Amino acid sequence: MSGSRRPRWSRRRFLSTAAAAPAFAALPRTASATQAPPAAGPAVQDPAPEAVQARIAARLHVMRVALGQQPADLTIEGGTLLDTITGELLPGWGVAIAGDRIAAVGDVGRHAGPATQRIDATGQILAPGFVDAHYHCESSRLSARRHAEVTLPQGLTAYFEGTHEIANAARGLPGVEYFVEAGRRLPQKIYPCVSSATPPSPVETTSGHIGYAEAARAFQRWPEAARGIDEVMDLPRVLDGSARLHGVIQAALDDRRVVAGHGSPPLDALDGWIAAGVMSSHSPRIGEALTMLRKGVHLQLKTERTGDLIRQLLDLPLRDWRSVGLAVDDRTAAELLDRGGIDHEVRAAIALGVPAVIAWQMATINNAAHWQVSHLHGVLAPGRYADVLLVSDLQRVAIQRVIASGQVVAERGRLTVPLDAGPVDPSLRHSVRLSRALRASDFEILAPPGRREVRAYVLPPRYFSRELGPITRTLPVRDGRVQRDLSRGITKYAIVERYGRGMGIGVSFWELGFDTGAIAWTVNHDHHNLGVLGATDEDMAVAANRCAEIEGGYVIVSGGTVLAELPLPIAGLMSDDDPTRVADGIRTLDRIAGQLHPAAALAGHPTDQLTFMNLTCDPWKYSLTDLGLFDLERQQRLPAVF
Amino acid sequence: MSGSRRPRWSRRRFLSTAAAAPAFAALPRTASATQAPPAAGPAVQDPAPEAVQARIAARLHVMRVALGQQPADLTIEGGTLLDTITGELLPGWGVAIAGDRIAAVGDVGRHAGPATQRIDATGQILAPGFVDAHYHCESSRLSARRHAEVTLPQGLTAYFEGTHEIANAARGLPGVEYFVEAGRRLPQKIYPCVSSATPPSPVETTSGHIGYAEAARAFQRWPEAARGIDEVMDLPRVLDGSARLHGVIQAALDDRRVVAGHGSPPLDALDGWIAAGVMSSHSPRIGEALTMLRKGVHLQLKTERTGDLIRQLLDLPLRDWRSVGLAVDDRTAAELLDRGGIDHEVRAAIALGVPAVIAWQMATINNAAHWQVSHLHGVLAPGRYADVLLVSDLQRVAIQRVIASGQVVAERGRLTVPLDAGPVDPSLRHSVRLSRALRASDFEILAPPGRREVRAYVLPPRYFSRELGPITRTLPVRDGRVQRDLSRGITKYAIVERYGRGMGIGVSFWELGFDTGAIAWTVNHDHHNLGVLGATDEDMAVAANRCAEIEGGYVIVSGGTVLAELPLPIAGLMSDDDPTRVADGIRTLDRIAGQLHPAAALAGHPTDQLTFMNLTCDPWKYSLTDLGLFDLERQQRLPAVF
Repeated sequence: MSGSRRPRWSRRRFLSTAAAAPAFAALPRTASATQAPPAAGPAVQDPAPEAVQARIAARLHVMRVALGQQPADLTIEGGTLLDTITGELLPGWGVAIAGDRIAAVGDVGRHAGPATQRIDATGQILAPGFVDAHYHCESSRLSARRHAEVTLPQGLTAYFEGTHEIANAARGLPGVEYFVEAGRRLPQKIYPCVSSATPPSPVETTSGHIGYAEAARAFQRWPEAARGIDEVMDLPRVLDGSARLHGVIQAALDDRRVVAGHGSPPLDALDGWIAAGVMSSHSPRIGEALTMLRKGVHLQLKTERTGDLIRQLLDLPLRDWRSVGLAVDDRTAAELLDRGGIDHEVRAAIALGVPAVIAWQMATINNAAHWQVSHLHGVLAPGRYADVLLVSDLQRVAIQRVIASGQVVAERGRLTVPLDAGPVDPSLRHSVRLSRALRASDFEILAPPGRREVRAYVLPPRYFSRELGPITRTLPVRDGRVQRDLSRGITKYAIVERYGRGMGIGVSFWELGFDTGAIAWTVNHDHHNLGVLGATDEDMAVAANRCAEIEGGYVIVSGGTVLAELPLPIAGLMSDDDPTRVADGIRTLDRIAGQLHPAAALAGHPTDQLTFMNLTCDPWKYSLTDLGLFDLERQQRLPAVF
Repeated sequence: MSGSRRPRWSRRRFLSTAAAAPAFAALPRTASATQAPPAAGPAVQDPAPEAVQARIAARLHVMRVALGQQPADLTIEGGTLLDTITGELLPGWGVAIAGDRIAAVGDVGRHAGPATQRIDATGQILAPGFVDAHYHCESSRLSARRHAEVTLPQGLTAYFEGTHEIANAARGLPGVEYFVEAGRRLPQKIYPCVSSATPPSPVETTSGHIGYAEAARAFQRWPEAARGIDEVMDLPRVLDGSARLHGVIQAALDDRRVVAGHGSPPLDALDGWIAAGVMSSHSPRIGEALTMLRKGVHLQLKTERTGDLIRQLLDLPLRDWRSVGLAVDDRTAAELLDRGGIDHEVRAAIALGVPAVIAWQMATINNAAHWQVSHLHGVLAPGRYADVLLVSDLQRVAIQRVIASGQVVAERGRLTVPLDAGPVDPSLRHSVRLSRALRASDFEILAPPGRREVRAYVLPPRYFSRELGPITRTLPVRDGRVQRDLSRGITKYAIVERYGRGMGIGVSFWELGFDTGAIAWTVNHDHHNLGVLGATDEDMAVAANRCAEIEGGYVIVSGGTVLAELPLPIAGLMSDDDPTRVADGIRTLDRIAGQLHPAAALAGHPTDQLTFMNLTCDPWKYSLTDLGLFDLERQQRLPAVF
């Protein structure tokens, strides 16, 4: 028999008989069978639903390219492959691509057919595209498409999007859906994590509500995209067993998804926080980070101020940093263009002493494995998304070319293809819904009758800390109204509910400088209500109303005149305008705001910093929301003055 | 306000106001509010289904123990903790346990209340329980409960069970369910992976069928237990796009589960195999293993014959073996008791030069992370199962005490508690269903009329190889029947379909010695049909019928008399008898079988080795099944003689 004369196994022989599986229902026993074997029948069919069949067909196509039965669409040859699993640099290893996936790695010459696009990578290193473990596209102020234009050339081919910004501003799941839809169309893969912070806490109003039912529904609707929840940060509600928050956590755990965390709980609450289900933190306090790591928390470092931690990690007995990744978290378009994105984080980690290969692992496989997508991302291997960076210098993260989903999308830092994320859903527009125009009198704080002065809560410039001294001050009263003390830098500010749910306004004092003009803004973590501060109630009203008129964004006013503005009409958070124009707008805002004499604490990027000052999560101790000023530890509302 | 007078954040203060979340629907604006803040209302409720509430409550209980609000059930103090994340040994770190979970690690003295059980671990190392990445309980010949009696004292607190043995023998999903149910009751966690090999190939009959629909149903029914599919091994069916096999793979991928593989495909098919979705191999060929690792395949090593590979891995640039785990795969009760289980593998890895901490990682966190359960297993950290090994010597894997699911289950190698896995489902009994008793004539092989001799396929003693020379031989004919040639060690054997699906019998010749007597067995990877070999057709019939009578297992016969037998009445694979008795039975079988003059290739454990000789997967080239003798590459049936 020929079978016994061909001693070498051959793939082709397997395949030539592909259809030759015999029917196996009623074969006669072979005991006396000397006759020729029966003709082969068709393989037993096992029909799956049509959508499933389509996914199988797509997978089999990649397999067949890998087997050399069909040519690759693209090969990248002649370079050296960075293997993020073994930590090796493998000279001569290339990548063969079928559609949006990697079919084969290694010596891939045989996969090139006459129509195959071939990229010569001589002198280059092939590395997997970056995966950011924790990211808010919204913080760039750019739409998903515009953001991709900036960050794809930086090598960011996938990110885990923390959707609570848009979920709070755009009615919950419809906000999440924005990123699902954009991710489906862009070569940049977006994994929108379901917001655990909608609302962020019970003491503020947002436009959406995500509890157990909504989270479970999201996982069912977007099983591939919504890989988990992001980012559990209302520490008191974790610890007190909040029904809403623990419902969302349970929905994620029940569906075997990842529960991302935030910050560092106090050490005596750390084990409880982990036991509650939290698996990661992208913002651990440095002094506590190693303890968190030891206790199984995946760390996603933002490299700024992590030097001490990195030195600790370098002293660990193994060079096994699997549980340490990198994340950008929040970065404006201006900063992305000036400093870079995750490429900058890798560079910074290397500058802090992390060996280059480990730094690359931190921004690729470590993040991918944590999010349970190492079969799709983080390593150049078959079946993964064809996200390949051609790098001329690993140490400097010098990215010469970016291939995303099998397509060359950028060369030397410049986008080379137009991107399409589909139309922006009109329902994401007009998100600033005030039931009437604001008046100067809306910002008045009345004093008890007959008082010449009052005690008032005055937030210090940077007040997000568990450790805070007394914050009450004496303020003068005029005509029954409590006055600013601009000479001491005490101005007034307000948070105005902007989702058409009653227009609650919280007003308080803030020692933030600004002895002239007013600023209004709708990027206001994490409720994203309308913030407005100002030296006069009149300018506050003008700024706030103009901000509503442009559908959100930033407006700076002085003496009734608009000095600068940046419209962010998508949910009041993002612009679909050209990124360089948006970045210029951000820089202008900062420059003009700087002329209004902000407190020193705001130096640098004053308008961006304003957006992070009204959080209600740990470690904030006080916060003003649309419902008033709160003692967050006690979850009690405080009188503005007394 | 007192809030500003207490500068230190305190967990207790958070918690004392647990119920104080204000209703946030219609608060008046605070602008003029100098009155006292409103009384706090109840937290917004977000009711989840009752079963979900129960899971939340269980999780919150662990959290509350971690927070020190309720006492732990058990603390282990005074030892040194092996941190499998950082690779550190942390002196003074203990573990506090609530129910079946770890609540806290570190300085856990504060978690002990008056009723807390306290274990003094002075001089001991606390390590996480072992997690086997690929295991077949059935190969022990023991029921899940009896198997746990043997392996819990060895530190095996969780395993990923490859269910194709029982799925093939017990009608598909009901077989899988056996392990789901046992795992629910035992302190040993069992993760039954859905069989991808039911049937193993189209050329054999088994009692079940698992395709897309069945796999999808299994994942829906057992979302926590069935973490993926196991073990894709029908290489030709992977490569030819088999509807059944790819349906099962797709069901796993669609539900974000793990696709475990087997063996090493030829290198020119490796990328196709990975691109098809396969994520791991527990049995890579040593020469190919490093290539597989580089291409993103998780390796689960069985340490025998891995010395060369381990030396290669030790030469890699990082000490990051995250993608390399350990597995036992198959081991009889006798071997488990004689050599050990996964504890032996860790010991062997260390003996081969793997640093002890890495070897421990390989058998804990590496396997857990691959199976996406690092939040439940593999590290001593909050929220994980309370599976703790007290070890007096890490290097020697000297396990003094085993805590599983929070319960001390073994001390110094001995089980200390009775185990209950619930009753064995009666439908798993009586799995050997022959429609009639076998007769000697069933094993006859007829010659073409008038022939004095014929050419016959004669399988060599160990024939599972892609590279095999000619295997036909000339055999004599007497009375029209083809004869054995016992002088040359050529005996006869048969595979009898035992699931009541038609009693197909395949009969062929095998150069396996045995010049006297007969052996019948139902542990027959992976179809587990009834195998029978013998020097006479009469003894073959006696052995086979007796084997059916005892509901499966092993029977050795000579001259019509039963010399030894081992009943395995659970699915014809397992016994619920005392493990030492089963182990003795296995040793007796091997001793008696050895007296029947088996070929040298079977030396050692002849009856166990018989069970692995009739596989139809790669790298087998020929195999006898109930449907006849097959050329597996061509998937064509061969005539027994010609």
